[in-house]
Amino acid sequence: MGSALFDPLFGADRVAARLDDASWVAALVAVEVALSAAAAEQGLVPEADAERIAAVAAELDVDPAALGRAAVEGGNPVIPLVRILRQAAGEAGRSVHPGATSQDVMDTAAVLLTGWAGEIVLDDLRGAADAAAALAAAHRDTAMIARTLGQQALPTTFGLVAAGWCAGLDRARTGLACVLGALPVQFGGAAGTLAASHPHGPAVAAGLARRLGLADAAPWHTERTRIGELAGALAVAAGACAKPATDVVLLAGTELGEVSEAAPGDSSSMPHKRNPIAAITARAAARRAPGLAAVLLGAADHEHQRAAGPWHTEWQTLGELLRAGGGAAGRLRTSLEGLVVHPDRMLENLARTTTDVAAGHASDLVDSLLAARP
Amino acid sequence: MGSALFDPLFGADRVAARLDDASWVAALVAVEVALSAAAAEQGLVPEADAERIAAVAAELDVDPAALGRAAVEGGNPVIPLVRILRQAAGEAGRSVHPGATSQDVMDTAAVLLTGWAGEIVLDDLRGAADAAAALAAAHRDTAMIARTLGQQALPTTFGLVAAGWCAGLDRARTGLACVLGALPVQFGGAAGTLAASHPHGPAVAAGLARRLGLADAAPWHTERTRIGELAGALAVAAGACAKPATDVVLLAGTELGEVSEAAPGDSSSMPHKRNPIAAITARAAARRAPGLAAVLLGAADHEHQRAAGPWHTEWQTLGELLRAGGGAAGRLRTSLEGLVVHPDRMLENLARTTTDVAAGHASDLVDSLLAARP
Amino acid sequence: MGSALFDPLFGADRVAARLDDASWVAALVAVEVALSAAAAEQGLVPEADAERIAAVAAELDVDPAALGRAAVEGGNPVIPLVRILRQAAGEAGRSVHPGATSQDVMDTAAVLLTGWAGEIVLDDLRGAADAAAALAAAHRDTAMIARTLGQQALPTTFGLVAAGWCAGLDRARTGLACVLGALPVQFGGAAGTLAASHPHGPAVAAGLARRLGLADAAPWHTERTRIGELAGALAVAAGACAKPATDVVLLAGTELGEVSEAAPGDSSSMPHKRNPIAAITARAAARRAPGLAAVLLGAADHEHQRAAGPWHTEWQTLGELLRAGGGAAGRLRTSLEGLVVHPDRMLENLARTTTDVAAGHASDLVDSLLAARP
Amino acid sequence: MGSALFDPLFGADRVAARLDDASWVAALVAVEVALSAAAAEQGLVPEADAERIAAVAAELDVDPAALGRAAVEGGNPVIPLVRILRQAAGEAGRSVHPGATSQDVMDTAAVLLTGWAGEIVLDDLRGAADAAAALAAAHRDTAMIARTLGQQALPTTFGLVAAGWCAGLDRARTGLACVLGALPVQFGGAAGTLAASHPHGPAVAAGLARRLGLADAAPWHTERTRIGELAGALAVAAGACAKPATDVVLLAGTELGEVSEAAPGDSSSMPHKRNPIAAITARAAARRAPGLAAVLLGAADHEHQRAAGPWHTEWQTLGELLRAGGGAAGRLRTSLEGLVVHPDRMLENLARTTTDVAAGHASDLVDSLLAARP
Repeated sequence: MGSALFDPLFGADRVAARLDDASWVAALVAVEVALSAAAAEQGLVPEADAERIAAVAAELDVDPAALGRAAVEGGNPVIPLVRILRQAAGEAGRSVHPGATSQDVMDTAAVLLTGWAGEIVLDDLRGAADAAAALAAAHRDTAMIARTLGQQALPTTFGLVAAGWCAGLDRARTGLACVLGALPVQFGGAAGTLAASHPHGPAVAAGLARRLGLADAAPWHTERTRIGELAGALAVAAGACAKPATDVVLLAGTELGEVSEAAPGDSSSMPHKRNPIAAITARAAARRAPGLAAVLLGAADHEHQRAAGPWHTEWQTLGELLRAGGGAAGRLRTSLEGLVVHPDRMLENLARTTTDVAAGHASDLVDSLLAARP
Repeated sequence: MGSALFDPLFGADRVAARLDDASWVAALVAVEVALSAAAAEQGLVPEADAERIAAVAAELDVDPAALGRAAVEGGNPVIPLVRILRQAAGEAGRSVHPGATSQDVMDTAAVLLTGWAGEIVLDDLRGAADAAAALAAAHRDTAMIARTLGQQALPTTFGLVAAGWCAGLDRARTGLACVLGALPVQFGGAAGTLAASHPHGPAVAAGLARRLGLADAAPWHTERTRIGELAGALAVAAGACAKPATDVVLLAGTELGEVSEAAPGDSSSMPHKRNPIAAITARAAARRAPGLAAVLLGAADHEHQRAAGPWHTEWQTLGELLRAGGGAAGRLRTSLEGLVVHPDRMLENLARTTTDVAAGHASDLVDSLLAARP
Repeated sequence: MGSALFDPLFGADRVAARLDDASWVAALVAVEVALSAAAAEQGLVPEADAERIAAVAAELDVDPAALGRAAVEGGNPVIPLVRILRQAAGEAGRSVHPGATSQDVMDTAAVLLTGWAGEIVLDDLRGAADAAAALAAAHRDTAMIARTLGQQALPTTFGLVAAGWCAGLDRARTGLACVLGALPVQFGGAAGTLAASHPHGPAVAAGLARRLGLADAAPWHTERTRIGELAGALAVAAGACAKPATDVVLLAGTELGEVSEAAPGDSSSMPHKRNPIAAITARAAARRAPGLAAVLLGAADHEHQRAAGPWHTEWQTLGELLRAGGGAAGRLRTSLEGLVVHPDRMLENLARTTTDVAAGHASDLVDSLLAARP
Repeated sequence: MGSALFDPLFGADRVAARLDDASWVAALVAVEVALSAAAAEQGLVPEADAERIAAVAAELDVDPAALGRAAVEGGNPVIPLVRILRQAAGEAGRSVHPGATSQDVMDTAAVLLTGWAGEIVLDDLRGAADAAAALAAAHRDTAMIARTLGQQALPTTFGLVAAGWCAGLDRARTGLACVLGALPVQFGGAAGTLAASHPHGPAVAAGLARRLGLADAAPWHTERTRIGELAGALAVAAGACAKPATDVVLLAGTELGEVSEAAPGDSSSMPHKRNPIAAITARAAARRAPGLAAVLLGAADHEHQRAAGPWHTEWQTLGELLRAGGGAAGRLRTSLEGLVVHPDRMLENLARTTTDVAAGHASDLVDSLLAARP
């Protein structure tokens, strides 16, 4: 998951670095280490074993490709990773993976990774929103023509347009932060009954959560509403980026010319072109999100006590959706942080329709929207 | 939107009755009436006009088909409806649609309708969750085999399975209720600047919200994160229904035979069959949701100050998604409320793998899950 | 399926009239009548019975709502319809539904309906393509500026732009016609083994196909590649409409002003506006298609010998997709048939970038594209 | 695009190796080399230059990561690659990229890559279909119970079930091969008018096609029906894999036990488990396809003469869809090639419902389905 060739262009390089194979391995190992420690805390395994496992894990050099090949037989990378850890830990190996099932470790690692990558997405959403807010403040009273259904309508201000961008980005960020902050550990054991850690299961889960900085929860092996909420929040974030990105592309068009990017792309054969590449690639990334979200939302029908397919569908799709949403935010941020506004062209265009630049309540709306920022 | 032939089968008849053409007309009229009243309150139009409009509207008999044909020219049904209302109101017609643009009325009507239909969806989600909770309580200790990846694994209890269904349904309902409860009125005027109601725009919007029982908000003509959140929440709800529906279908299979529906479908040629039709059609309805949600999530890229397409895409898709999600909840409720559990078959199946029925922490988990219900 | 309020606006009224509840009933009845006749031809049932059934069916007045309510119990409308037909046919009732299962009748009826509605879609695609071709021929040499990434690039001709629209519409129509023309009858009996018509099953299927004007095929109860192909072809058609509709919206924008629609929408408050409503609603309809297609493509995983959900998912989704694709084609046709081109504005805009109007091979490409039309 | 950790598990390693960054670079370079040669053939550039470029390109070592970083400025990797090639070729550098625009090279490279990867997908579809055909032949008369809506219905044969799998896989492969075989080169120049190669453009395009083994076509920069068809065909292929994969998972369930995989996954804690991992991961891969296909189908609305976003959306999505579809085929092939059938369990299960094993026309249908294979 990730492409050195395409990730920078689509703004996904920062996010992708937290979602690559090495990050998965790191997250899986971190979960196993924390799990042994949490189990030791409850007396399920010796403290010394847990410490030994942590020490061994810190030195462990797991090749993702080898782990990937070894994952085929059992159906997930946790099975061979546990084997590797057990072997490396010697006698303490008996205390690796205590009371757990593969899904406990995969799900918790996925949550960890999502948090790591999500931080970048949130940061870029914040950056893009801040840039929009700065544009709104700077252009609170800059008159431009509002366009509805593609046609010039009545005057507005560029400040109000940018404040609307900011509002959408802020709402999307708040929603995503809320979902990310509530993602819990998974700990249920082979049948979701906490049988192998009985009666200490809930305490182990709580300890695991504390150690990993995640929320605690009852086992949710096949209760996937959280994954669906995450998918929805990421697609909403992508949509909140698609709106300003689309506006930038349209406003930067030659005939409108009301904005341009700081570093527009040129063309070897057409030096007059000023392509708003950051906004274009933000749009491109954002368009990938709804279909990816639909895959995750459609994978909610986990059968029985562990799904035979829908669960596995989530793994790569989640990474792709984080890259799409994060990429959209990253590229939009670049676009907005450097956006150059051309008030003269705005006035010139507006003059096609009216000489009156009164824009109703526009400037006041900018003030109230900016004041209400989270 | 709606089919007398298919809606009952897919559980959408109750929801569809609140989303049909007549409901749309009623919602559009209700918004216009409330808008004139809210404007009168601010002195924008005479109180007497607003009263006259309300009286006229109460008597108005608008044919949806005629309105639909008349909507083609201007691009939405509000334009001809305003014409009809103005004509019917005589001199008071001058006070119809004060300070508003078509999108104000369409969006607010869509929010109203969504609330009406959403109530049914929430009620059915609640009913399905309650039925699951009752099953969980009744079968807290009923031993059954957990199945992972389709294979018998270790013992669990049917109570824990049903408590998991309940947890997902409750979470989905809470999430959907939260989104529905925050859906606001739309009032921005032709360019989203509240120009034609200046400086009373925010007060008119607040009055409109109060009269319609909706939230207040700054104009969100092209800031569609709320629509995206609604799409996500409905698809999550559909997914929360798909999980238990899938389990019921599998557990009701001849060879497992661990549950059956109260009113299984028969077959003219095969009287021995007992098809779990309610669960089957719940699954079918649920499967429609992610693609419909993707359409709405993908329609976030509203251009300029009124989108030339993405906005219009929302109207029917929203209705279809409410019918899909609501249908899934309605049919699942029927399935679970009448679900017959066969503990003997559970024991018999379990015996293939083990004679030990100890299910770890399962019964305690049932208690804590049920105690934590919202 | 269908809305008198929205179907005209989104171009779906002609298609919807062939997909409504009454059409479904008509198709189901037509299949049963043809089936009895085809069975009689093979000696499975008396010829006189088949004739009686045909006569009775011609007089039958089935209320879709009542049939819909009766469908809930058994899970599809065929079961109660067969009951009605048997009762109406008296003694000949024994020869209703010979050797068939509900899915045989539902699938064949769905194919029939799809053909009826598909005819309209193909006709509108043809009409839109013809209009594009006429524009291409009329404006073979009309100079305009090509725009890439939203920026003015080099000269092209409007003829080449329109010829490109035509090429996409023609390809999409050819692909859709190919899929529609190959849709076969379904006849497999309760287990897909043709047991109840043995050994005449294949001959009955062939007779049924001949009578209904459909292709013949082995039972495909759970082999749904054809439904997937249909979904793909309809979504491709919608996409082929989205491209010119998007161009019309952009070219009709106030600042570009290079085209306008024959009957642009006005605005009560802004008489200067000329909204390209037909193109806008074509875009809106087209955007609904990919998500609906994804639902159908994702419903391919029919379990065992009759799917418990995925099959039922198809019924309404297919109708919605036909309405979306057909609506896009219908509205685009309206847009293009009346499109007014403004060569003066094209020249004026082009002059921003260059005074040279040489457009390379553009005019020759128009000729070759039009000459290659299917 | 690609993950060493997950690709083997999801069957995507073979496909991914033809879609990785290095393959993209190789394809881009191959297109530039062929383009210079085709242009030389028409006298647009010196033959010696073209030869020099080919020689230089053969030695060129382009780092995808560096190219990826350099792609950000101009918006695609072709711009920096042309720079690199020109520099490396010295004086012959003037003959790099003759008459072309970036999209010509990106689109043609994408088509090349798709062909390379598509070969693997077709091969695995063929392998899976052959395995299904062999199962069908071997079990032509092996009695089993047909299950409809999850319930035992009437007898069929496992041969007929497997023949149905084969039919779907064969149809999907034929459809995909047809689309793949028709994918053409892209050559249109900066505005799609072949201006910079005038009047030799069509001849250059034809030469380019011949050299790369692709079809020839008029410029299709914004006429994306082919991409939509490809998306549809890949999603249909994934669906054709999802059906047998789902059946295998269900039939391998402990209670049915009618098939098992050759190398079922075990479980460290539950040695009795025999997880059909290949079928499970085939299902998982297949479920990713419809959403990815929807992204591509929805990206048809390319604006003007080069899309500002929708085009860029295609690049990574296409790779992901090829990996999903190819992975489903690859894993299903593994599942079916090693599938162990248990006729005794089939008889035992069947006996729950009937003692009669007559399966109508089932065996004859196997013969005719196998005889009709493409």
